[in-house]
Amino acid sequence: MSDCGKLIVVSGPSGAGKSTVISRVMEQDKSVVFSVSATTRKPREGERDGVDYFFIDSDSFKKMINNDELLEHAQYVENFYGTPKAPVQENLNKGLSVLFDIEVQGAMQIKNICPEAILIFVIPSEFSQIEKRLHIRGTDSEEKIKQRIKTAKYEYSMALSYDYIVLNDDPDSAANEIKSIITAEKCKAVNRQNYLTEVNSL
Amino acid sequence: MSDCGKLIVVSGPSGAGKSTVISRVMEQDKSVVFSVSATTRKPREGERDGVDYFFIDSDSFKKMINNDELLEHAQYVENFYGTPKAPVQENLNKGLSVLFDIEVQGAMQIKNICPEAILIFVIPSEFSQIEKRLHIRGTDSEEKIKQRIKTAKYEYSMALSYDYIVLNDDPDSAANEIKSIITAEKCKAVNRQNYLTEVNSL
Repeated sequence: MSDCGKLIVVSGPSGAGKSTVISRVMEQDKSVVFSVSATTRKPREGERDGVDYFFIDSDSFKKMINNDELLEHAQYVENFYGTPKAPVQENLNKGLSVLFDIEVQGAMQIKNICPEAILIFVIPSEFSQIEKRLHIRGTDSEEKIKQRIKTAKYEYSMALSYDYIVLNDDPDSAANEIKSIITAEKCKAVNRQNYLTEVNSL
Repeated sequence: MSDCGKLIVVSGPSGAGKSTVISRVMEQDKSVVFSVSATTRKPREGERDGVDYFFIDSDSFKKMINNDELLEHAQYVENFYGTPKAPVQENLNKGLSVLFDIEVQGAMQIKNICPEAILIFVIPSEFSQIEKRLHIRGTDSEEKIKQRIKTAKYEYSMALSYDYIVLNDDPDSAANEIKSIITAEKCKAVNRQNYLTEVNSL
């Protein structure tokens, strides 16, 4: 007997440092695999096709939508993002948990389709950190940073639709919170009923 | 800003190895303090008054009930057990979590009084381990072991009234599950709303 894999959805505003935290979780917990999203946005420096994202063009993206090959999809700051269905099912079948790095709209779609999915919202403990990190990252123009801040405020307004809020002031501590959430979810009484059956039938 | 202390109720049948697991949690997580119960049962070897339990006689126990000094109390295998109120409130005021080692009836009383309490049921992954451990412990007669097994079966039937089921085949792994549950509970969105207020008022 063993615990089942979970769907873990992680969202957070740009500048919340979500990607670093997710990398730490993936390094430390081998029962969790990363769901690689498809996107029409251009790769940032260091990002690899098929590892960080499947980088595809708008036409290919539309084809995937039409063929019902995406679990969810959404537009976010001019670009499309979506989750291919097939690899998710394959990993769950192996008993692994699948972690999704997706924005708010996609997260809500996943929760509608899979109510048992665990939704985690990552933020710094102070909002001012977000603007600071976007400037330090230096990949966006001033105009784009303003747009991201506006989007971040909308995202914060959705935070209570998530199950958990993870604080990222330090990536290791935030990764520990996510790993704890995954462990705790497996321990929920309703998920461990199978360990009681033997006795209740005695 | 910091997370609030929690009430953590841990139950489990005799022979589930609960005490060892709780000791590990207390050693490793200094934000958790142990709620010392009052009991009329005789101390086992190595148990210290005021540390493991307040060992008191039936008359003193009845006085505490009458003076409303107990958060909960219950009878269990011929003896009385109860939780003194005062130290619980003192620790919560300090922002610490308080862990209770109490049996099923007491746990249900705590949940009624404090619905936000976190209820954890500790069991081995196989029921047969319980009988085995009771024999190894060697503190009980055959007759008493039979009675404990019967009680254990009743307790298992209540397990789904708990929030979490922790598996104790290995004390370190079980302690890790309990620590993860405490961390995850602090991360629940509803418990971290205070980190959103600043932004939603911008």
